[in-house]
Amino acid sequence: MAQTHLLGLLSDFGLRDGYVGVMKAVMLSIAPDARLVDISHEIAPQDIEGGAWTLGMAWRSFPVGSVLLCVVDPGVGSARRAVALVAHGRVFVGPDNGLFTYPLDDDGSGEDAAPRCVSLDDPRYHLPTPSATFHGRDIFAPCAAHLASGTPLAELGSVVDPATLVRLPIALRPRREGDVWVARVAHVDHFGNLITNIGAELTRRALAHPLAHISLAQREISARASHFAAGPQGEPLFLQDSSGALAIAVRDGSAAQTLGAQRGDEVMVRGLADAEDAC
Amino acid sequence: MAQTHLLGLLSDFGLRDGYVGVMKAVMLSIAPDARLVDISHEIAPQDIEGGAWTLGMAWRSFPVGSVLLCVVDPGVGSARRAVALVAHGRVFVGPDNGLFTYPLDDDGSGEDAAPRCVSLDDPRYHLPTPSATFHGRDIFAPCAAHLASGTPLAELGSVVDPATLVRLPIALRPRREGDVWVARVAHVDHFGNLITNIGAELTRRALAHPLAHISLAQREISARASHFAAGPQGEPLFLQDSSGALAIAVRDGSAAQTLGAQRGDEVMVRGLADAEDAC
Amino acid sequence: MAQTHLLGLLSDFGLRDGYVGVMKAVMLSIAPDARLVDISHEIAPQDIEGGAWTLGMAWRSFPVGSVLLCVVDPGVGSARRAVALVAHGRVFVGPDNGLFTYPLDDDGSGEDAAPRCVSLDDPRYHLPTPSATFHGRDIFAPCAAHLASGTPLAELGSVVDPATLVRLPIALRPRREGDVWVARVAHVDHFGNLITNIGAELTRRALAHPLAHISLAQREISARASHFAAGPQGEPLFLQDSSGALAIAVRDGSAAQTLGAQRGDEVMVRGLADAEDAC
Repeated sequence: MAQTHLLGLLSDFGLRDGYVGVMKAVMLSIAPDARLVDISHEIAPQDIEGGAWTLGMAWRSFPVGSVLLCVVDPGVGSARRAVALVAHGRVFVGPDNGLFTYPLDDDGSGEDAAPRCVSLDDPRYHLPTPSATFHGRDIFAPCAAHLASGTPLAELGSVVDPATLVRLPIALRPRREGDVWVARVAHVDHFGNLITNIGAELTRRALAHPLAHISLAQREISARASHFAAGPQGEPLFLQDSSGALAIAVRDGSAAQTLGAQRGDEVMVRGLADAEDAC
Repeated sequence: MAQTHLLGLLSDFGLRDGYVGVMKAVMLSIAPDARLVDISHEIAPQDIEGGAWTLGMAWRSFPVGSVLLCVVDPGVGSARRAVALVAHGRVFVGPDNGLFTYPLDDDGSGEDAAPRCVSLDDPRYHLPTPSATFHGRDIFAPCAAHLASGTPLAELGSVVDPATLVRLPIALRPRREGDVWVARVAHVDHFGNLITNIGAELTRRALAHPLAHISLAQREISARASHFAAGPQGEPLFLQDSSGALAIAVRDGSAAQTLGAQRGDEVMVRGLADAEDAC
Repeated sequence: MAQTHLLGLLSDFGLRDGYVGVMKAVMLSIAPDARLVDISHEIAPQDIEGGAWTLGMAWRSFPVGSVLLCVVDPGVGSARRAVALVAHGRVFVGPDNGLFTYPLDDDGSGEDAAPRCVSLDDPRYHLPTPSATFHGRDIFAPCAAHLASGTPLAELGSVVDPATLVRLPIALRPRREGDVWVARVAHVDHFGNLITNIGAELTRRALAHPLAHISLAQREISARASHFAAGPQGEPLFLQDSSGALAIAVRDGSAAQTLGAQRGDEVMVRGLADAEDAC
């Protein structure tokens, strides 16, 4: 039996216009057995950072061998490169504009081979006469489908040094200033949860220390919970989100609305040193 | 050839954040041949009643043997049970919070075996180290995928008496008060149609009797039609919806907007007795 | 190995209510190996023109042999015909209300056999006792699935002359008035791009002639670009869209918002004759 690869899709195309369906029709024409899985097509238009975060959250759930097609591409048709990147056993396909910042900066589990990358410049794997405005259909979708069908990476174009790929100039991890950790809201989700760039270990420490608290929007948040329903109604709390990060939430409500917060807002973790002193 | 099971998905996750894609990647890693069908992921956040209604409308269209994964789960991580329920030949997987009220209360077609239920408490069928905030990914999706792959229900956890499952405290059927049937708007759909909890038989009687009329929001509705385009423009009418229920609609418009109505509003069927007297 | 047909879906059902999932469950019960691809379910309610345009943009990307199920159907249950149309090697299934205007009026590549059409009036291919309000589930989905499974067109009902099918009374191409081409905005997409009914050849001429300009909403647009990122920030420009048509866009912005424009607005191409004089 031929192996069936998962092919994840992420874009800012929305679901109204039919652009996503067109990409899928192109892919299934080339790779009829590929299993397509939508990650999101509701990334805000041209929001590369939002696309990068969402991909960063999702890619680990796709098994090794999956292809992840990502098209948030305001530079379509310009000199920005179109690339396929193998990292952590998955293949990432899309424009070289920072979308792959999170998997590129992930130090991995130690088991990873070095990333490899090509520029998608071999027209044999494109649709004939590609447009200058819809590389999702004309270049990325067919290349992703060929990769999912087993075409080797090196066939698709010339080698690119992964170190030259664009990374977003955003802080992926908090910085320490004395006793304070300065972090940021990395994503506001559909429920209004504020997901920060505070990683699993620091989150566990903050949850464990009674004196630790979070500052956001001139508000101190010291309530914490192991899960949403353990929190008080209507009051912001912090917890460990399913990715391991520290998130700020309101039970049965929206932390974003309650706090007037948005992506990029500064979040500080304070009191950890006091807490440790108190131990 | 191995049998391919349908695996229907319903949640309040929305389509923007990638949470649904993550659940699908998990499921297809376990059950690569499962056919995934989205029912809805746009249930309002934490709206168990909306999720229950939508599942209640949809499940009969899924063939016997299908698995229906339902995650509207404000209590994730709390003591609420995670369950798999076999009823009407389908397997319903999700939190025990009332989502399964409609299939549980359906008297069925007489062909049904008694429902069976287990608590999803065997960690062998979960992802390793489940989070406390995303059981959709860590417990429900893998259990649903194992069920779709043919793992017997009893493997997944300890037996639960289906009679102990949570049912929503909403009226699934109208009550009679003298000559009046008191019903409610059970769902407002995308078109603004108001779908009531008035079942097929009473709906047919109301449509058949010229003196019958519907009261809603201090308005009397006596116009009726067999289908939308048979109605007058702009004026509310009642008809039999595709599930058999009585629905209030406005041709090429929104009854919800025209009438300022919403889910839970009281709807009365009057005039049936007069109509019968007049026969 | 049995051939796997693509089955594209387009509707105005939205994604919230579960109606699309119900159609898919019906289809996969009949044609378990069909590959379903959503084109769009967010056509505005009852917007036949919007559905027709979106289908017109998308159908060419579906390989020959695909079935395209289209349900924007305000006339459901009325005397409007339910049809299946073979044209350009694809099968279009839906109500006869103008949805198929674009493929019907496409002169094709010369390779096409004459279109063939049937009325879906053979109840053997419907669900038992179809409703009068949801032919998507009861008639169109099962017929589309039977066609995708290889049932010959002629089995599904009586022959219809394709010349009698409803076409939308909209101008699919611009008209010439002296030196001016009078066109219209045919679609406003998710990014706010204004896609006109100006075809590939006239678009190329306008892009090539420095004196050519576009009038829309009392504004003259003479900036043009080969792709979005080549345009100035914030200023409307015209370019060739991925379907070949002339589109008006704003780099990293919304032309619809900037210009206050909407579908149906008049667009004029001027200056082509001057440009040619100047050559």
